Amino acid sequence: MVATESGQNTAIKTKGYGASGALIGGKTLKEMDFDRQPPKADEVLIDVLYCGVCHSDLHQVANDWGNTLYPCVPGHEVVGRVTQTGVDVTKFKVGDIVGVGCMVDSCQHCAPCQEGEEQFCEGPVGWTATYNGYWKPDGSDFNTYGGYSTNMVVKEKFVLRIPDVIDPSVAAPILCAGITTYSPLKHWGVKPGDRVGVIGIGGLGHMAVQIAKAMGATVTAITTNKDKREAALALGASDVLLSTDTDAMTEHEGLYEFLLCTIPDEFDINPYIPLLKRRGSIVTVGLLAPYAKATNNMNVAKKSLSVGASLIGGVAETQEILDFCAKHDIRPEVQMIKMQDINDAFDKMQAEDVRFRYVIDMQSLKDEE
Amino acid sequence: MVATESGQNTAIKTKGYGASGALIGGKTLKEMDFDRQPPKADEVLIDVLYCGVCHSDLHQVANDWGNTLYPCVPGHEVVGRVTQTGVDVTKFKVGDIVGVGCMVDSCQHCAPCQEGEEQFCEGPVGWTATYNGYWKPDGSDFNTYGGYSTNMVVKEKFVLRIPDVIDPSVAAPILCAGITTYSPLKHWGVKPGDRVGVIGIGGLGHMAVQIAKAMGATVTAITTNKDKREAALALGASDVLLSTDTDAMTEHEGLYEFLLCTIPDEFDINPYIPLLKRRGSIVTVGLLAPYAKATNNMNVAKKSLSVGASLIGGVAETQEILDFCAKHDIRPEVQMIKMQDINDAFDKMQAEDVRFRYVIDMQSLKDEE
Repeated sequence: MVATESGQNTAIKTKGYGASGALIGGKTLKEMDFDRQPPKADEVLIDVLYCGVCHSDLHQVANDWGNTLYPCVPGHEVVGRVTQTGVDVTKFKVGDIVGVGCMVDSCQHCAPCQEGEEQFCEGPVGWTATYNGYWKPDGSDFNTYGGYSTNMVVKEKFVLRIPDVIDPSVAAPILCAGITTYSPLKHWGVKPGDRVGVIGIGGLGHMAVQIAKAMGATVTAITTNKDKREAALALGASDVLLSTDTDAMTEHEGLYEFLLCTIPDEFDINPYIPLLKRRGSIVTVGLLAPYAKATNNMNVAKKSLSVGASLIGGVAETQEILDFCAKHDIRPEVQMIKMQDINDAFDKMQAEDVRFRYVIDMQSLKDEE
Repeated sequence: MVATESGQNTAIKTKGYGASGALIGGKTLKEMDFDRQPPKADEVLIDVLYCGVCHSDLHQVANDWGNTLYPCVPGHEVVGRVTQTGVDVTKFKVGDIVGVGCMVDSCQHCAPCQEGEEQFCEGPVGWTATYNGYWKPDGSDFNTYGGYSTNMVVKEKFVLRIPDVIDPSVAAPILCAGITTYSPLKHWGVKPGDRVGVIGIGGLGHMAVQIAKAMGATVTAITTNKDKREAALALGASDVLLSTDTDAMTEHEGLYEFLLCTIPDEFDINPYIPLLKRRGSIVTVGLLAPYAKATNNMNVAKKSLSVGASLIGGVAETQEILDFCAKHDIRPEVQMIKMQDINDAFDKMQAEDVRFRYVIDMQSLKDEE
């Protein structure tokens, strides 16, 4: 293990892509230079190799949730190589291929943190998001910058180990799309023999199809886009249900123990509820806002259903899904892009033109140096 | 056992209270005479002693769900004495004190029926409601009449045994209010040590407080009506939370593993969701319509919550809650009324002026004879 003196004071020059937030054009990502603080005793410096492009990145840059701090440097599906370690770091050594997901810190003292569920941190400011994170209510604290950058400094507790068998160039989406879908599939108890429907076959959905199948479920891909049929079957879906086909939707009523809904924008959940079998659950992971319409409780009550939601997952659980993907030969399908092409990629994602996850090759930004 | 020849053809003269549905005044209950078919081989004739008045009775008479068949004779919390049994009846004998709840039949062949969950019957017309039940889609089948009547004829499979230790005059509300709250408390896994909030302290809520406490939970009664405080504490609630007190609502955020919502009319569920602890569930049993507002999924997602609903319970489970109430000394609090006072009782229920369930003493109708 190569250790570095804690307290070393040289700022680490970093190049990234961020949005300024200025009114005109400020939500377009542009190259920006900034400093990272050198790693403290319990932190590692990571040379970013790849960063996945999550739909949340679009929402955050556009301030869709009304909480964006500018400048905003997105990226929370980060894969890189450790290049420096603080003196107290024991889990990682220089050269290790590692990942960073949606969180980079939490209070570590509250009950959820003690139970390894940092995503429910009840500390004064909750968990620290990998980007746009850790502001105090009075706004006095800093704005974290994410993985659309050449390097990151992260507390080792929040750094994941990328299994050797997973090619680092495709691993990134597991760190958000993977954990975000795995966590509800696990906690709502999907088991062998269950019928599971995955609604929305994009970045999250294409992981969910593979994960649910590996859990032993029979999976239906539910999509509005008939062009995704072949790809969904190739991912392991047993069949494809077009949600725009009302006859087919009626035929599929009452079949599913579990539905995972990954639609990232406002939508009406009511048409999907009848697909559930008695005592089934539908869980939405994409939407962080009100549904488009009020839930009709009649349809929920008559079959004793649950309409749930989930956000991300804890650190231990993120390592678990990385290892699960390694074991079950699950790989994200990625389209590699250059950092300089990010605004074009955002546009294509809005138009659902991606199969299934854009990943930035950060070498593209380093080559400019 | 006193058995009666199946196929006996003498219609049984019955007196009841029903709504005609006629445009002017037709939703006021009036005395009506009708015939019951004599018990078939697997049926029993029941002399109705008491019938609880459920909020559903108001909704059905008023056609709030758009599916009311007139004339409508409500009543699905029925307690009576067996006076005749079909030749194949084995569970009951003349003189037994029995109950009838929300259902009087189901297909008996589908998977839910085979599993003893007749409330999810997947037969051609689903389960048969005790009143307003069993119409076929083409309207050719009969309209069941409920327990606001001097007698009923019911298949023994759907007849419950009232435990000896429960006074028949207070047992009726267990057959709907009891099972309707017990079933979700059980199926969503309430366990000793949990904190449970019961929202709405009426007919259903006052049973839920007692049942949840008997399950070992610490119970908060959540109400808009501060006058219910003492009664709620007497029922076993540890504390009372006024949902109109926004400061108190904020102080109670994150405390509850489970919330049971018994509000019978359209309401907004969003203010209650933050009361849940991570991975908690809120289940609505009163509302059979859309919520007043769309659920804000952000609040559900960030703590991985479930928003569920439940309707009634199966036959075996209804016997289970009767026995549970006997064992744990749980009794509905009833206000006895005469059949002739039912319209006044409906008005008082609309005004929430009942502690906590009206029960009709059917002797009042027989005394007219």
